[in-house]
Amino acid sequence: MNAQAGCFYAVGIGPGSADLLTVRAVDIIKSADVIIAPRAETAEKSIALEAIKPYITDQEIIEHIYPMKRDINATLDCWGKVADIICEKTSQNMSVAQITLGDPLIYSTSSYLLDCLEGKLERKRIQVVPGISAFQAAAAKFQEILCLQEDRVTMMPGTDLIEVGKALESCETLLLYKAGRNIEKIKELLLSRGLLKNAKAAFYVEQDQELLWWNMEEDLDHSGKYMTIVIVRNGSRGWK
Amino acid sequence: MNAQAGCFYAVGIGPGSADLLTVRAVDIIKSADVIIAPRAETAEKSIALEAIKPYITDQEIIEHIYPMKRDINATLDCWGKVADIICEKTSQNMSVAQITLGDPLIYSTSSYLLDCLEGKLERKRIQVVPGISAFQAAAAKFQEILCLQEDRVTMMPGTDLIEVGKALESCETLLLYKAGRNIEKIKELLLSRGLLKNAKAAFYVEQDQELLWWNMEEDLDHSGKYMTIVIVRNGSRGWK
Repeated sequence: MNAQAGCFYAVGIGPGSADLLTVRAVDIIKSADVIIAPRAETAEKSIALEAIKPYITDQEIIEHIYPMKRDINATLDCWGKVADIICEKTSQNMSVAQITLGDPLIYSTSSYLLDCLEGKLERKRIQVVPGISAFQAAAAKFQEILCLQEDRVTMMPGTDLIEVGKALESCETLLLYKAGRNIEKIKELLLSRGLLKNAKAAFYVEQDQELLWWNMEEDLDHSGKYMTIVIVRNGSRGWK
Repeated sequence: MNAQAGCFYAVGIGPGSADLLTVRAVDIIKSADVIIAPRAETAEKSIALEAIKPYITDQEIIEHIYPMKRDINATLDCWGKVADIICEKTSQNMSVAQITLGDPLIYSTSSYLLDCLEGKLERKRIQVVPGISAFQAAAAKFQEILCLQEDRVTMMPGTDLIEVGKALESCETLLLYKAGRNIEKIKELLLSRGLLKNAKAAFYVEQDQELLWWNMEEDLDHSGKYMTIVIVRNGSRGWK
C-alpha cells in the first residue's frame, strides 16, 4: 500500500528494530513525501528516525521536538503545531507520515496528533498503521505467554503504586509501562505479594535499539531507564 | 533475519492481511524449510495459510487440524503431536515456522505449542516473532485511541458476562476477545451501563480477511461470528 497524495498516516514502527515494522509501514514510509519524526526534548536524536533509516531515501524529514512534561496544555499546543504542518502539506497534495515507536494508539504521541487533527483533516484522509507494541516485543524475547483461555491482561503505567497494587487483584497478567522511575518500589510491592519470581522487565538501549531484559529477582540496577516495561504473571484461569 | 537450521519459530502473522506481517515474519516464512499452518476443525481451510500465500514458494506445508473445544487434555494432546513433528524436523537440521493469526502470545494456539516444546527443544533454538493483534488492527481501522497517560486497558474474553461487568469498573478501555457468541448480551450490559455509544465491534470475513467493523449502537445482527472483538472506551484518567 503506497502513501496517497493529500493523505496523512500515523505509522507505528514497532519497538525499534528495522525488521519489526510491518510491510505496510515500510511501504507507507518509503512512498511518503514527508516524514515527521518525533524527538523527546531530552533526547539527542529521534529514536524512531534511527530505527527506520534503512527505508529513508529522499523523503522530506521534519524532526519535531516534543515536551516531556505532564502538562496537557503544553502537549496539545505542541501537537497542534504539527497538525498545522500536516494540514498545510496535505492541502498541497503531499502525503505525510508521522512515525511513532510501538503502536500509534497505545500510550503514543500519535494519539495527541490525531486529536489535534480532528475537524481539520477529513477522517477519510487519515489512516493509522498499527505497530508491534513494546510489551509484545518483550514477551516474544522472554517466550512469555501473556494470556490463554479465560485470562485477563491489564496494561497500565507503573507510576501510581496504589493503583498497581489494586490491578494485581483482578488480572492474570499485568503489563506496566513507564516503570523505570519506580522500578525499586515496584520490586518491593511484587516481593510483598510473592510475585517477584514471576516478574520480568525490559528496556531499550537507545543507541542501537537492542532490547535488554531480565528476571526481576536478579539484583540489577536499571532504575530510571526510559521506556522500561514490566510483565507480571499472576496465575492463570484456564477454562471455567 | 533468515530461519536458521535446526530452529523453530512461532510466527505471528497479524490479523490476516499479507502486508500486516512484520518484515521479520516475512523473512522467516520465506526462508523456513517447513511451515506448520493451523486449521480449526470447523474451518474449510487455514485462514493463516491463506494470509501468507504471497510468501509461499517451495516450503513444505503441514496443515494441522486442531480441536475447537474447551478441553485441556484434547488440546495438549493435539499440540503435543505437533511438538513431536517439530522436534523431528529440527533434529534433521530443518528450520520450522508455525504461523498463527495475531500475536503468538495473546490468546494463541502457539502458546500451547510452546508449552509442549518445553524440555523437548532447547529454548535457544526457539524464537517468537510478535504479530499485530486483532485489537490493534480494529483500533487502527476505527482511529480509536486505546490509552494515554494514566489510562488502564484490560483485555479478556467476552465469555463470562459477570466478569465483563466487573472489569468495566477498573479500566478505561476494555477489549473483549471471542465476543461473537455473546454479542447480544454484551450489548445489553453496555446499554445498562450507558456505554453502548462508546463501544465498537469488529470481525473478519474469513474468505478474504477483510475487517468489518461497526458502532455497537447500530442494530446489526453479527452475532456468533468467529473472532469478534469489542472495544469499549470507558472514560480517560489524564495525568493525576
